[in-house]
Amino acid sequence: MNKIKAAIVGYGNIGHFVLDALETAADFEVAGVVRRKVTDIPERLRPYKVVTDIKELGKVDVAILCTPTREVEKYATEYLAMGINTVDSFDIHTSIVELRRNLGKVARENGTVAIISAGWDPGSDSVVRTLLQAAAPKGVTYTNFGPGMSMGHTVCVKSKPGVKDALSMTIPLGTGIHRRMVYVELEEGASIDEVAKAVKADPYFASDETHVMAVPSVDELKDMGHGVNMVRKGVSGTTQNQRFEFNMSINNPALTAQILVGVARASMLQKPGAYTMIEIPVIDLLPGDREKLVGHLV
Amino acid sequence: MNKIKAAIVGYGNIGHFVLDALETAADFEVAGVVRRKVTDIPERLRPYKVVTDIKELGKVDVAILCTPTREVEKYATEYLAMGINTVDSFDIHTSIVELRRNLGKVARENGTVAIISAGWDPGSDSVVRTLLQAAAPKGVTYTNFGPGMSMGHTVCVKSKPGVKDALSMTIPLGTGIHRRMVYVELEEGASIDEVAKAVKADPYFASDETHVMAVPSVDELKDMGHGVNMVRKGVSGTTQNQRFEFNMSINNPALTAQILVGVARASMLQKPGAYTMIEIPVIDLLPGDREKLVGHLV
Repeated sequence: MNKIKAAIVGYGNIGHFVLDALETAADFEVAGVVRRKVTDIPERLRPYKVVTDIKELGKVDVAILCTPTREVEKYATEYLAMGINTVDSFDIHTSIVELRRNLGKVARENGTVAIISAGWDPGSDSVVRTLLQAAAPKGVTYTNFGPGMSMGHTVCVKSKPGVKDALSMTIPLGTGIHRRMVYVELEEGASIDEVAKAVKADPYFASDETHVMAVPSVDELKDMGHGVNMVRKGVSGTTQNQRFEFNMSINNPALTAQILVGVARASMLQKPGAYTMIEIPVIDLLPGDREKLVGHLV
Repeated sequence: MNKIKAAIVGYGNIGHFVLDALETAADFEVAGVVRRKVTDIPERLRPYKVVTDIKELGKVDVAILCTPTREVEKYATEYLAMGINTVDSFDIHTSIVELRRNLGKVARENGTVAIISAGWDPGSDSVVRTLLQAAAPKGVTYTNFGPGMSMGHTVCVKSKPGVKDALSMTIPLGTGIHRRMVYVELEEGASIDEVAKAVKADPYFASDETHVMAVPSVDELKDMGHGVNMVRKGVSGTTQNQRFEFNMSINNPALTAQILVGVARASMLQKPGAYTMIEIPVIDLLPGDREKLVGHLV
C-alpha cells in the first residue's frame, strides 16, 4: 500500500496531538515536522525529520497546518502552489468564505486540494448542523459550547494591563447563550476591579454575562476538556416538533487533531479546489475498502 | 430557476409525507404520482397527475421510491435505465452493499444516479455514525432505537395464526439492547398463550426480551413517533474517553420523507453511479447558493 506522506506544520498543542493521530493511522507516513527553528527539538520528535522549510522533506502529499489560525492562509497558499495538499482548522467563522475562495483559486491553478476549517467547530459540528438543517429545513439550531476554555477570549484577557496570566472559560446557559468565567493572575500591584472593568468593556465580552476573579495560579486551573450541546427543533415537510440533539465531551486538541488527519486522508480523493467539511463525503475521512465501510456503517 | 421534476412512486405512508415535503421545497416541481391503480384517487392528489406508468408523466428528473422496500430494486433498475435518477429508503441493512452494486452498474451504464438507503436509519444516522468513527477511530458505537413501532417485527407478528392485528414496539434498554413490547388483537377463539409462544420462538424475537399481550384495539395504540439514541465512547489519536451522543425524537415517516427529498436534490449533483448517504457531501442535501450555505453552516 502506498502510504500518504503527511507533514506537520507547527508543533504546538495541536501539532503534538496530530503526531499521535498519524502514528496510529496505518495508511499514513510522517514525512516530517516543519518548525520555525530546529533548535530545542523535543525528545518526542527524535524519530522524525524536523526542518524549517517543507522542501527539505522530499515528497509530501499533504501538509497538516497546526499554525496559529491567522497564519493558515500564508502557509496554505505557498504549499498549494508547490503541489502539496493542505488541511487546516481555521476557526474565524466570519472569514471562512473568503479563505475558501482564495485557497480555491490557488488549488485549482495548481491541481491541489485544500480542506479548510476542519476541527470540531468549525468542522464536525458543521457536518451535524448541515445534516439537521436537511432533516428539518425550518427551525432553529442552537450550538452551546463548553464548559471549556475559549482560546480567543483568553488571549483577549491576557492583553489587558495588569494581567500576568489568564483563562476564560465558556459556560453554556442554553439557546446559544454563554457565561464567561474569567480567571486572572494579577501582576504585582494591579487591581482586580480595574482588570474586570477593562475585560467587561471589551467587545469580546460586552454582550455576555462575565465574571472576573483573581486566582493565585491560572496554570492549576487549565484543562483541555471541552463540550458541545447542539439542539435543533424543526419541521420536516409540514410535520412540526422534530427534535434533534448532539452532545460531545472531549479533549479539545485531540479531537481537532484526529479530524485533521481524517481530512488529510480525504484530501487525496477530491478534485482540485478548496472545501469545507460539509462539502466532502464523510466516508472519505475513513481508511479502508469502501464497500466494507458501507456494509458496516450505513 | 429550473425546478427539479420529481415523481412520487407509491402513495402509502411515506409517499404522503414526501408530497408534503416536496410542496414546501421551492426548487422542486411535483411531476406526478405513480400508483398501481388510478381508481380511488385520494382528494389530496387532485392537483396532480396520477398514473400507473411513469412514462405518462413526461420529463422526470428523479423518482422518489416510496414502495415497499423489497420492490425498490425492481423500480430503480427500470427507471435508472430510462434516464431517471432514483432515491429510496431501502432498509434491509444486510442487502445494502448488493443493492448499491446492482444499481451502480445500471446507473453508470445509463448516465443516471441512485441514492439508496436514505431515510434515518439507514440514512442520516449513518452519516453521524461515520462521522463519529472518524472523530474517534477506536471505540464502540451503540445505536439505540425507540420507543417506536418496528415495521418488520409488526409484520412478523401479524403472520402468526390467531392474530387479527398487531403492533411491535421497540424499547431501548441501552448498549444496543432492545425490549420488544408486542400488542395483539386476537381472532375469535385464539389463545394469547399460543400466540406469545409462536412470537417468542420466531428468529425475529428469539434473542430479545419480549412481552406479548392481548389488547381490544391495536389501532388505538398506533403512534408514528420514533427515537434514536446513538452513543460513542472512543479514542482520538491516543486520547481516551472521547464521548459523543446523538438523540432524535421524531415523526418517523415525516423525517424519512424529508431526507428523501434532500437526496433527490443531491442526486442532481453526483456523477453517474449508486451512492449511500455517507458517500455524498451533506451540503448537497440543501438548496441555495453554496457560498451562503458555507457562510451560515460551517
